[in-house]
Amino acid sequence: MAPWFGHAANPASPHQIGRKARQALDDARERSASRLGAWPDELVFTSGATESNQAALLGLAPVGSPTLLVSKLEHPSVSTPVEMLVARGSKVMPLPVSPQGEFEPDKLENLPEGPLVLIAHLAHHGTGAIQPVAELVQHLAERAPGRCRAHTDATQAVGKIRVNFHKLGVDTLAASAHKFNGPAGIGLLLVRRGKPWAPQTIGGGQELGRRGGTPSVALAVGMARALDLAHEQMEKRQAHCLDLRRAFLNRLWANCSPLEVIGPPEGHGLAHTLLVRFPVVKAGLAVMGFDLEGVATSTGSACASGSQRPLPGLELLVPDEAHRREVVRLSFGHEQTVAELEEAGERIARVVRKLRGNPP
Amino acid sequence: MAPWFGHAANPASPHQIGRKARQALDDARERSASRLGAWPDELVFTSGATESNQAALLGLAPVGSPTLLVSKLEHPSVSTPVEMLVARGSKVMPLPVSPQGEFEPDKLENLPEGPLVLIAHLAHHGTGAIQPVAELVQHLAERAPGRCRAHTDATQAVGKIRVNFHKLGVDTLAASAHKFNGPAGIGLLLVRRGKPWAPQTIGGGQELGRRGGTPSVALAVGMARALDLAHEQMEKRQAHCLDLRRAFLNRLWANCSPLEVIGPPEGHGLAHTLLVRFPVVKAGLAVMGFDLEGVATSTGSACASGSQRPLPGLELLVPDEAHRREVVRLSFGHEQTVAELEEAGERIARVVRKLRGNPP
Repeated sequence: MAPWFGHAANPASPHQIGRKARQALDDARERSASRLGAWPDELVFTSGATESNQAALLGLAPVGSPTLLVSKLEHPSVSTPVEMLVARGSKVMPLPVSPQGEFEPDKLENLPEGPLVLIAHLAHHGTGAIQPVAELVQHLAERAPGRCRAHTDATQAVGKIRVNFHKLGVDTLAASAHKFNGPAGIGLLLVRRGKPWAPQTIGGGQELGRRGGTPSVALAVGMARALDLAHEQMEKRQAHCLDLRRAFLNRLWANCSPLEVIGPPEGHGLAHTLLVRFPVVKAGLAVMGFDLEGVATSTGSACASGSQRPLPGLELLVPDEAHRREVVRLSFGHEQTVAELEEAGERIARVVRKLRGNPP
Repeated sequence: MAPWFGHAANPASPHQIGRKARQALDDARERSASRLGAWPDELVFTSGATESNQAALLGLAPVGSPTLLVSKLEHPSVSTPVEMLVARGSKVMPLPVSPQGEFEPDKLENLPEGPLVLIAHLAHHGTGAIQPVAELVQHLAERAPGRCRAHTDATQAVGKIRVNFHKLGVDTLAASAHKFNGPAGIGLLLVRRGKPWAPQTIGGGQELGRRGGTPSVALAVGMARALDLAHEQMEKRQAHCLDLRRAFLNRLWANCSPLEVIGPPEGHGLAHTLLVRFPVVKAGLAVMGFDLEGVATSTGSACASGSQRPLPGLELLVPDEAHRREVVRLSFGHEQTVAELEEAGERIARVVRKLRGNPP
């Protein structure tokens, strides 16, 4: 990205240095879109998934009040615009969710009349569950033909698993670069060709009139490179993350049982993110104790300024309220080593034993 | 910025590395706010001035339909949300503008009843005119006490002249880092303490609930540093830009008169940006010719993808339509040299003489 931060040209300028910037921007667009099974003109650069999710949902909902098919498991960047649509008159029909946090297309019955909007994440930011979004879209296309739109928040999935926008069948898809080792401050929104969608910011008409503001060539180039690397190394990273997960969980099981992994079984979700319940241990205290030992974890979404919200929809996975207060969110990266994860597991187990009053 | 691009922590995370990121973000916030005469909690990080302008205007307009006091000279990032407010029922009362493109507070009379919103740029992106925004606010406070809100788009002014948010008296102020040598992809919105304002994106509740999305620590640190440098070197840069302007214009006057500089006289506006009319020469052809000679210029706002819009409101400064097609927008930076500007002036003059059919 460095040369582009030093290159002041606006990619919309008509002169040589402007055109050079535009070439770099369009190259980044083509490469990123191609990795995600989309056409270049379907990709809109945004400031991140929060903007993408809001733009997708506010732009997607047809005039009138569609029924929103959406679960409580969505990230606040999705549930907040959902609340805005509800305030404008939309109703919500909850998506059926298994006790492991996976959507169940077969149980989606008794669809209401009128326009529908499916809103479903592609992978969950806590459990790592990979969702049957294509099956949900297909199920709705059969039962409510011609009256269903669909958005997927693919923030956790892009760069971790192969994502094909057209095969998913959704109208819009959101992602953030910093979730796949790209720079913070840029994301993308995919909008299906030919599907009606109303942009939320127009400004100077950039991004084919779909998102105003001078695009950051440096960030777009950085995002495209990060996505390329993620795809070139995907299977290697996935296998390594599975090794890391096993090494980590083995230490926990050996040294601080009982514990409960919440979410789908190994191999049915993203390997790098975990929800773990440590019975009898308050998660807030545990997270502080882990931090003192140099292990960074959290109890919920690390989004709200200065506060920790509980993970949205956790009640669907952990019905007992006292148990929910024992759930810690853990994640790691492919750039870490098995030895590091083993060490993290040891430290966490030590803190958990201490908080339980067990001998060290 | 480089270390922060490699530092994956979310500044909202509660652990040590998250807190370190938050410290850097808050330090950037404090420094940037302080440079602009604002409190740290009045500064919201955004993706740039387009987002800031839209958020300011849509959040500022009270319920009901305020009358918007706004001229045609505003940048598309302002005029687009103005159109959105008009579509929701607001009326527009044009601000009085001098033939040099300067607002005239004394001529602002016959104010309508009901709530008013003043929308005025602080410096113009074409002429460089520095506007009497504080005087406009004061004028309205006296004539319409308690019913006027005010927004200024300070994108062209911040980093070029000293800007004091509280002394301007406005409720909101927008700026973009890449306009003062900071990174593209970040901007700021100042929102006056205690003034009602409705955020447009909430997401995970970042920025005290005023702007959703994981903030980019790297970009915030880069913007703060660029603003510090701009302020530390401001008088030096200003004097140098005036030298550059004179050297450039001297070459033009000497080698391709007649020409007309549109806007306020030297010393009454920003030195680094110029609107010049080359009589008898079509601006579109001139810009192409300059580009072939290695001089990057434009005919309008370099915002819309792939097209050049005419400068908004140019008809207020150049009433003759044929004359408007002869206007070129030129700008340069403090990092350039007098020799470079003289050379640019020579090349431009050569192209202009050629297009006029004059001997080379």
